[in-house]
Amino acid sequence: MEYLSQNRAFGGEQFVLSHSSEATGTDMTFSVYVPPHADGTTLPVLWYLSGLTCTHANVTEKGEYRAACAEHGVVFVAPDTSPRGEDVPDAEGEYDFGKGAGFYVDATQAPWSENFRMRSYVEDELPQLVAREFPIDLARQAITGHSMGGHGALTIGLRNPDKFRSISAFSPVVAPSQVPWGEKALSRYLGEDRSAWREYDSVALIEDGARHDHILVDQGTADQFLEEQLRTGALSMACAKAGMSPTIRMQEGYDHSYYFISTFMADHVAWHAARLA
Amino acid sequence: MEYLSQNRAFGGEQFVLSHSSEATGTDMTFSVYVPPHADGTTLPVLWYLSGLTCTHANVTEKGEYRAACAEHGVVFVAPDTSPRGEDVPDAEGEYDFGKGAGFYVDATQAPWSENFRMRSYVEDELPQLVAREFPIDLARQAITGHSMGGHGALTIGLRNPDKFRSISAFSPVVAPSQVPWGEKALSRYLGEDRSAWREYDSVALIEDGARHDHILVDQGTADQFLEEQLRTGALSMACAKAGMSPTIRMQEGYDHSYYFISTFMADHVAWHAARLA
Repeated sequence: MEYLSQNRAFGGEQFVLSHSSEATGTDMTFSVYVPPHADGTTLPVLWYLSGLTCTHANVTEKGEYRAACAEHGVVFVAPDTSPRGEDVPDAEGEYDFGKGAGFYVDATQAPWSENFRMRSYVEDELPQLVAREFPIDLARQAITGHSMGGHGALTIGLRNPDKFRSISAFSPVVAPSQVPWGEKALSRYLGEDRSAWREYDSVALIEDGARHDHILVDQGTADQFLEEQLRTGALSMACAKAGMSPTIRMQEGYDHSYYFISTFMADHVAWHAARLA
Repeated sequence: MEYLSQNRAFGGEQFVLSHSSEATGTDMTFSVYVPPHADGTTLPVLWYLSGLTCTHANVTEKGEYRAACAEHGVVFVAPDTSPRGEDVPDAEGEYDFGKGAGFYVDATQAPWSENFRMRSYVEDELPQLVAREFPIDLARQAITGHSMGGHGALTIGLRNPDKFRSISAFSPVVAPSQVPWGEKALSRYLGEDRSAWREYDSVALIEDGARHDHILVDQGTADQFLEEQLRTGALSMACAKAGMSPTIRMQEGYDHSYYFISTFMADHVAWHAARLA
């Protein structure tokens, strides 16, 4: 584990680290914010999964989470969105597939299956690694994310309700099997058999029986991707059919950017903190 | 005036604009955050001057000022740090002179004197322009900044105590005449006659009689530039001799980055807001 940077912020420490990942077979970079805390205590942890084209850096610089994490005593971890490196296959010129677009799946199709294993990385490897290095309590985890990362947070949380006490998302892709971003990514990472896609689709997971009692979603009404790619309504419908009562808030006039995310970040941190107490 | 972007944030609107400046003879880009407010009201305004190499974008993305500005009803304006464009002279390979390093002076030396007129731009042109376009009250102005921009805020505020009710700074250059960044910039923009530098040097301005009752400075103790370039102690000394009582806070363990600035930004906004009420 290599420490790339460490900066004091809001009484705690913002770290950026790199390590050699078993899951992806590459070096992976991520950030960890550790709020001020008493020596010897362990803290709840909130995972934040980023969207298409992003790395750990976008939310670390623009997410405005540190004030709330310091106030509530929550560790905040932001992984990258895909494996990186010259040896990793990529889709030249496509912002929505390949590097920066791992979709939080374990790919099964060549040439992607060797490195694009972001599900195993985020669900299994990274939590163990972070828990060895930082004072987190793996019995108190929550997960959130933005756009493709909102899809990641919802699917990982729905598959692991015992691990993640609460799930939230900013403008998530809720039904990748039904929208262009998702159809492109899932068909190439997982193949054309759509039954294999269902564990990576929040709406399909709920249709297939997945349940979670603590879900919060914020979605801007001025989001350019709302109709074609995000389709918040499909999540509302699936939850209603399943008897789930998530909090889904349509936020008037907000777009898809970090101006939107940062506006509601403190709300999300406080909401998770209440469920992690 | 061209609107480059507009994003809803914290109930208000974050704008980025471009216009053709008379002062610099170039196009200039700046950002304005307008918090939620009742139609027909005017709001106090806080000017933020950025440091070396920065544009409006650094603080706009990483400054974390919008929550506090929305809470206190303060408009926040962030200008660029120098003229830009292919026709503007530059110092190739020097991060601390030329483009991105205007030092908030009106240059008198060729070839800089034609475009590097950031004093006139920030003191005179931009406030009039912003007041025509946005609901600000020019009787309620305050100014802040970081590093070179902290120097800008202090010198502009000290020269215009009737215009700016309060001045704050994050890790400011307080005595440019005495440190490498300042000696380099002032000698080339203003010439070798050091008497011409004094109106661009906070410590010299105070020695020469400038006074202000409302000054707040935050300075990190782990700031790599503290000893050589910033010299907070020289401001404390000059103020003490002059009978001024600024609030100068040394912040343990903080560095020169936006992790530091964002930590104390809400404090600064609230402090200014109390003086602009």
